[in-house]
Amino acid sequence: MKNKQVLLAARPRGPVEESHFRIVETDIPKAGEGEFVVRAHYLSLDPYMRGRMDDAKSYAAKAEVGAVMVGTAVGEVIESRHEKFKAGDFVETRTGWQEYGVSSGGGVRKLDPGYIPLSAYLGAVGMPGVTAWIGLNEHGRPKAGETVVVSAASGAVGSAVGQLAKMKGCRAVGIAGGKAKCDYVVNELGFDACIDYKAGDLDAALSNACPKGVDVYFDNVGGPTLNTMLNHMNAFSRIPLCGQISGYNNPDALAIRNVRSFLVNRIALRGFICSDHMDLWRPALKELGELVHDGRLKYRESVAVGLDNAPKAFIGLLKGQNFGKQLVKLI
Amino acid sequence: MKNKQVLLAARPRGPVEESHFRIVETDIPKAGEGEFVVRAHYLSLDPYMRGRMDDAKSYAAKAEVGAVMVGTAVGEVIESRHEKFKAGDFVETRTGWQEYGVSSGGGVRKLDPGYIPLSAYLGAVGMPGVTAWIGLNEHGRPKAGETVVVSAASGAVGSAVGQLAKMKGCRAVGIAGGKAKCDYVVNELGFDACIDYKAGDLDAALSNACPKGVDVYFDNVGGPTLNTMLNHMNAFSRIPLCGQISGYNNPDALAIRNVRSFLVNRIALRGFICSDHMDLWRPALKELGELVHDGRLKYRESVAVGLDNAPKAFIGLLKGQNFGKQLVKLI
Repeated sequence: MKNKQVLLAARPRGPVEESHFRIVETDIPKAGEGEFVVRAHYLSLDPYMRGRMDDAKSYAAKAEVGAVMVGTAVGEVIESRHEKFKAGDFVETRTGWQEYGVSSGGGVRKLDPGYIPLSAYLGAVGMPGVTAWIGLNEHGRPKAGETVVVSAASGAVGSAVGQLAKMKGCRAVGIAGGKAKCDYVVNELGFDACIDYKAGDLDAALSNACPKGVDVYFDNVGGPTLNTMLNHMNAFSRIPLCGQISGYNNPDALAIRNVRSFLVNRIALRGFICSDHMDLWRPALKELGELVHDGRLKYRESVAVGLDNAPKAFIGLLKGQNFGKQLVKLI
Repeated sequence: MKNKQVLLAARPRGPVEESHFRIVETDIPKAGEGEFVVRAHYLSLDPYMRGRMDDAKSYAAKAEVGAVMVGTAVGEVIESRHEKFKAGDFVETRTGWQEYGVSSGGGVRKLDPGYIPLSAYLGAVGMPGVTAWIGLNEHGRPKAGETVVVSAASGAVGSAVGQLAKMKGCRAVGIAGGKAKCDYVVNELGFDACIDYKAGDLDAALSNACPKGVDVYFDNVGGPTLNTMLNHMNAFSRIPLCGQISGYNNPDALAIRNVRSFLVNRIALRGFICSDHMDLWRPALKELGELVHDGRLKYRESVAVGLDNAPKAFIGLLKGQNFGKQLVKLI
């Protein structure tokens, strides 16, 4: 019995490739005094990880070359010398891309897989769901009757944004890549419309889908999509800036060209990350958990199987090849 | 006795030239029932007027070709058939670029030239001062000890921004064009530092002037200055976006390239105009009036003499050739 790990082998310049990772096997760790060992069931793959691979100032510590890639997993405690955790507990831990990890309990959340599926704690009832909740409620602040647009609409964050907006009485419009994702967003998630940005002429499609303009644009992608959205923003509209996946490999692609719109329409654009608002996690997770438990907040998962497939799945995520929350199933 | 007027003769494409205006003479108007006639003493010239010359959607009605250029003046009522205004009253009116105008009283402010100089009601105790007050207090929200940077620092808005920031206990740093303006901003207005953007290497100068980074950047210019500022913004910093004078002739120059900073530093950028907050004008004008009356808020004026010189003075304003609030003295 070994512990498989994915290390960051090299920092990418441009697109991420499998060669930027290295898979190794080590011994399964032992718990020291005040620690416990978790066997991961699911590893979460998220766009923010791309930023961690760079050697640039950011809002969180970068991953180190030669170390286990950073990330969050859900799993089961198999050995404990910690007074608050015991074998058999299910937990969320930041133990990275590996099968077994050691924790001293900091930032660890206990989970109840009898309430909602274990994997949901990495998606709709985890960081992505809280990101959607905070970005929409704290920064977007939509009122009933307003129009909310979200990019990467079938993804873990975007799918929650639109469904929460609908619950507030808003018109929810998604932007996603391809007909299958758009059909899912409208037919399964209940958005009012979803635009396939790969089909061309996003500008005209937005005019059709948002006849009263846009009051909140929840931006997960940046780049040309944001520039086009700026043509459609209403006076006093809000842009919670959550992600810039279109520019991870090429920051020049992120340039905002339609800058006059900020002044003409008095737009508030605000970058945020969910950990800026730790005080809101408890109410957000409570509401999101109830909604998933009751079947009112839906989500979809792309599940890669086995840690060996994590690099490939992550590269696919950066290209939009996932469909819903990207997970790696480890057990 | 005639009424001289400046008409918009043609919409500029690119830089404004004198040929875009036409000066005509008409009869001095008569007051109809419920109206009064104002003889303007000072006409205000402001960067926002450049936007009014374009045939583009904006936050206010555009100027019409063949009509009197839009603008605000202060002057004296010389004839009245309005119950609330009488001959001899001093008022601020939106009667445009002309010597005599008719008003029915809407939006007209009565002035007391015994309290502060009449021209100050067009500057520090008028729209520019209120713009500074609202942008700083409502959007910038600086706390004591924070660093506030403002561009066009010797101008009507910028000079008030920095002085108000100092009163709040902030470090105030200006950006202006040329040594004379920078010396004035530091020595006369009391800013902690002022950077001459024409001297080159704004980035290094900002590092020197703002050793603890920047918490509020009050942006009057947009363009390359904003891009450079984005290198210096602290986490959770604010950018009240007030003007984009660098891009009036060339919107491409406004492109924001350093977009990653918005997310990394969770920056809030917000376009605003002072008329979005009419509820704040009364408290703002009261405070600004007291500060000017007491000599605690200083300002400087560039005064062109005679309406014939208004087009040339306006073109100079757009090029930064003014030094302080640009006025045209008509009497």
